Amino acid sequence: MPIEAFTDHACLIVSGPDQQGLVAAVTALVARHGGNIVSLDQHSTDPVGGSFFQRVVFHREGLAAELDTIRADVAATLEPFGMEFVLRDASIPKRMAILATTDDHCLLDLLWRHRRGALPVEIPLVLSNHTTTADDVASFGVPFVHVPSQKGPDKSQSEAELLAHLAEADVDFVVLARYMQILSEDFLEKVGVPVINIHHSFLPAFIGANPYQKAKDRGVKLIGATAHYVTGDLDEGPIIEQDVVRVTHADTVPELRRRGADVERAVLSRAVLWHAQDRVLRHGNHTIVF
Amino acid sequence: MPIEAFTDHACLIVSGPDQQGLVAAVTALVARHGGNIVSLDQHSTDPVGGSFFQRVVFHREGLAAELDTIRADVAATLEPFGMEFVLRDASIPKRMAILATTDDHCLLDLLWRHRRGALPVEIPLVLSNHTTTADDVASFGVPFVHVPSQKGPDKSQSEAELLAHLAEADVDFVVLARYMQILSEDFLEKVGVPVINIHHSFLPAFIGANPYQKAKDRGVKLIGATAHYVTGDLDEGPIIEQDVVRVTHADTVPELRRRGADVERAVLSRAVLWHAQDRVLRHGNHTIVF
Amino acid sequence: MPIEAFTDHACLIVSGPDQQGLVAAVTALVARHGGNIVSLDQHSTDPVGGSFFQRVVFHREGLAAELDTIRADVAATLEPFGMEFVLRDASIPKRMAILATTDDHCLLDLLWRHRRGALPVEIPLVLSNHTTTADDVASFGVPFVHVPSQKGPDKSQSEAELLAHLAEADVDFVVLARYMQILSEDFLEKVGVPVINIHHSFLPAFIGANPYQKAKDRGVKLIGATAHYVTGDLDEGPIIEQDVVRVTHADTVPELRRRGADVERAVLSRAVLWHAQDRVLRHGNHTIVF
Amino acid sequence: MPIEAFTDHACLIVSGPDQQGLVAAVTALVARHGGNIVSLDQHSTDPVGGSFFQRVVFHREGLAAELDTIRADVAATLEPFGMEFVLRDASIPKRMAILATTDDHCLLDLLWRHRRGALPVEIPLVLSNHTTTADDVASFGVPFVHVPSQKGPDKSQSEAELLAHLAEADVDFVVLARYMQILSEDFLEKVGVPVINIHHSFLPAFIGANPYQKAKDRGVKLIGATAHYVTGDLDEGPIIEQDVVRVTHADTVPELRRRGADVERAVLSRAVLWHAQDRVLRHGNHTIVF
Repeated sequence: MPIEAFTDHACLIVSGPDQQGLVAAVTALVARHGGNIVSLDQHSTDPVGGSFFQRVVFHREGLAAELDTIRADVAATLEPFGMEFVLRDASIPKRMAILATTDDHCLLDLLWRHRRGALPVEIPLVLSNHTTTADDVASFGVPFVHVPSQKGPDKSQSEAELLAHLAEADVDFVVLARYMQILSEDFLEKVGVPVINIHHSFLPAFIGANPYQKAKDRGVKLIGATAHYVTGDLDEGPIIEQDVVRVTHADTVPELRRRGADVERAVLSRAVLWHAQDRVLRHGNHTIVF
Repeated sequence: MPIEAFTDHACLIVSGPDQQGLVAAVTALVARHGGNIVSLDQHSTDPVGGSFFQRVVFHREGLAAELDTIRADVAATLEPFGMEFVLRDASIPKRMAILATTDDHCLLDLLWRHRRGALPVEIPLVLSNHTTTADDVASFGVPFVHVPSQKGPDKSQSEAELLAHLAEADVDFVVLARYMQILSEDFLEKVGVPVINIHHSFLPAFIGANPYQKAKDRGVKLIGATAHYVTGDLDEGPIIEQDVVRVTHADTVPELRRRGADVERAVLSRAVLWHAQDRVLRHGNHTIVF
Repeated sequence: MPIEAFTDHACLIVSGPDQQGLVAAVTALVARHGGNIVSLDQHSTDPVGGSFFQRVVFHREGLAAELDTIRADVAATLEPFGMEFVLRDASIPKRMAILATTDDHCLLDLLWRHRRGALPVEIPLVLSNHTTTADDVASFGVPFVHVPSQKGPDKSQSEAELLAHLAEADVDFVVLARYMQILSEDFLEKVGVPVINIHHSFLPAFIGANPYQKAKDRGVKLIGATAHYVTGDLDEGPIIEQDVVRVTHADTVPELRRRGADVERAVLSRAVLWHAQDRVLRHGNHTIVF
Repeated sequence: MPIEAFTDHACLIVSGPDQQGLVAAVTALVARHGGNIVSLDQHSTDPVGGSFFQRVVFHREGLAAELDTIRADVAATLEPFGMEFVLRDASIPKRMAILATTDDHCLLDLLWRHRRGALPVEIPLVLSNHTTTADDVASFGVPFVHVPSQKGPDKSQSEAELLAHLAEADVDFVVLARYMQILSEDFLEKVGVPVINIHHSFLPAFIGANPYQKAKDRGVKLIGATAHYVTGDLDEGPIIEQDVVRVTHADTVPELRRRGADVERAVLSRAVLWHAQDRVLRHGNHTIVF
């Protein structure tokens, strides 16, 4: 999955009830608009009565000028099938905001990958409830905004402040880089874009706080991390990616935390890359990752 | 990649020069013959002037009666594109012969997976240059034939005997389950079907004999195994699958052999499964694994 | 960790409160009995006030004749430290019983490893609540006993039958090779030897029945297996070993089961090997694996 | 292997011909100097006539004041055994220099781990043949020195400059963080401290330049990285650590480079950590990693 420049490439996501002739209809559409399919993935949850998901990337000279015309044709073509779709110019990076706190490993890893050209996104801002990483963020040329967390159970004021910054930055998705604050359902509703979290355990094991301590207490031989979309149910959202690393009886909790940090940043960076490339499709509480 | 019963499923493999409209032509063909695409993978080595590979699995009620008609249409459809293709009834298992010797781990693993229904093949015979595994093979209800290896550099007579048995059994491919004999180019030409070998190293490291001893001598921290198609160049054929396992300074050569055996049988079984499902396409000295 | 012949090798396990001079006392003891230490591992849960665990393997010509003398000296040496110990002739394999049911992958893998000389145990019997694997077990030359599971919640009669067979076979430990029956606390107390189970999930995720279905429902990206000692709390005993394998949205529950079976047999075989070699020490609900 | 503060901890490395009584002699010595052993590892290449390696970490209140006395006793104790040893105050971090070039992933990862307290070293300087990473290095508060590479085959002048800087900084070891320049045997001799390199392949596969291109050409299914001590034979020095990551036919060479970069920095950071903790012992062209 190369992330080199995607000039004149479009990405079309189609989903809905599985039925005969769908793939032919979509690919014929691409062909009659002069597109050359460079990548095609599909998945059906069940050939009989299941849901169908497709991701098509095609190259078309002078795409930008034709995009609206093609979009209209996609809508007309898929209408009789009752399918939903998204058609995007793949050369336009998504706008990603990062919410962070004092711990810097996930935050810096994303900023560093972005600077290397390994994450096809724009990062209009980093929001943090502490100022400890301000200088580091600045060194990457990314705007840093300090929004202190509200004390007490009512977070409505600090959440409102976050929402204002996110709206102004016009972001396409939000990444919680070990943000460690629970966002309210109200926030999730109002933010209106996908929110990706990294949880420091192999979910569904060790939901909630202090998973490394819980892992030590249970005596597991592997620890892990899980990137998932945030929903109103804590640590229960659709899983995008997971990975693990081997540990032993000799590893202390600080050591688990250190080794886990490497898994966390690796897992989160893959989830962010795939989301940025429209590779992650949601289906109920599941994801399809193409 | 489920391997459940594939009644009324066809598998179509298409390859040749990449060009616009190909995917649409193939999927339209499937649709007009009443097929529902359940799986579609494709790869282009280069969007401009590259080679294109596609694997389509589709369901079609009463496939068997229509297969020849569909095949003729595929030929006619692909002719102007200059593409090659294979169309198979996916419910008909390929016929696989196993060549073995005294070491039993790869041989028994394949037979055991086959009995569990986890390898969609028929196994008409096992050929071995020793009789040590004869009873085990018999317990799986698979015919066992003993073809002793010819002494000296000239193997033409024993190879001729192997070829006769393979021809009589009408096999679609041959698996060398740690057979340990080098087959001549003449044999490979005459056998006329793909031959899959498992090499007990992470190729291209440690080509040739005694790779575990060489691994110990070099002091590597991982050992591996490689499944590949056999060509006239020893251990240089297209790689299908590889894997590794971690070792330490404390592991002796017998211990490397024991731990390597687990990697060998796992890697070979995956390669055989994927080959049996037409997931492995050859392109020069490379493979595309869908 | 080679498992080659251990003639004249002893294995000494020491555990108790950590304190200064312990290692010196133990190693001096080995030296004054003419032993050469070939392997030494130790672990302290906390240098101050923690528990200390040590495993020493030493070579001593004519060990068998001296073992009782050495044992008496170990007892005398460790008495002032208040430590517990076990001293074993490492050349005498432990006696292992396997409890099995219809699913054969863990059972056959253990029998096959044993036949290859890769598991330093004796297997005096396989107990199964079904007869499906009787012929396979017989082909390995291992006695097979059919003990049907009692219907209903009261299993006291079938458990009594199992206990009688295990007592007669004089086993050192019991392995549940996907036995799928819950053993009562009463059974665990009476059996008097360690019982190792393989659970088909990455514990503590997916405790209880049908973990592969639960894994599919949750949409995890890795599935796993866990070998643990059995206690009265279902799936809560000390974990010996765990491992995982990557899965995708496309894998069906039968496919998860197939791929999980490979992880299960690998994890169980490692746990059994390590237990057989006295490498696994229990400490509360944890294990130390040397 | 925690890296928390090691106040009053000593690390003793012993090596030489294996013989009876060694472990007892060393552990008795620790005990009579009031030390409590917190970690002990040992390895014998062969119980009969082999080489013996041991690493002992012990805690001793007021260690610094006693270190010379203990060292003299170690020398006296080991003299009759003909063993070599190193005794270090484990609370004193080793001094590490990094040699870098334009590519920043290994360099920044080491600096970042160091700042987090996850690498127990001091970094007195970074030497680079380009200035591209100067600002980043400065942001970590580490001195940066630009030493341009000499054109042509004779590197004696630039190597002399490097040697002068390294001598002035009084470093204990040197890390080549993808330095990409071949150091002469003369340099290696004069530098007088261990030099660790990260090679961007799973050695011994793909020795020399452009391993990712070679990996693509060969069609391997895994790519890797190898950290090793540098010797006069290019890419042939003792291997400290290796790891791999899975790739597919669809991965381009730039994609291999991106994914390989993650393996490189992970492998190098482990090798550096273990070297810094005296966990890596050299034995001919092998390493023992405790």
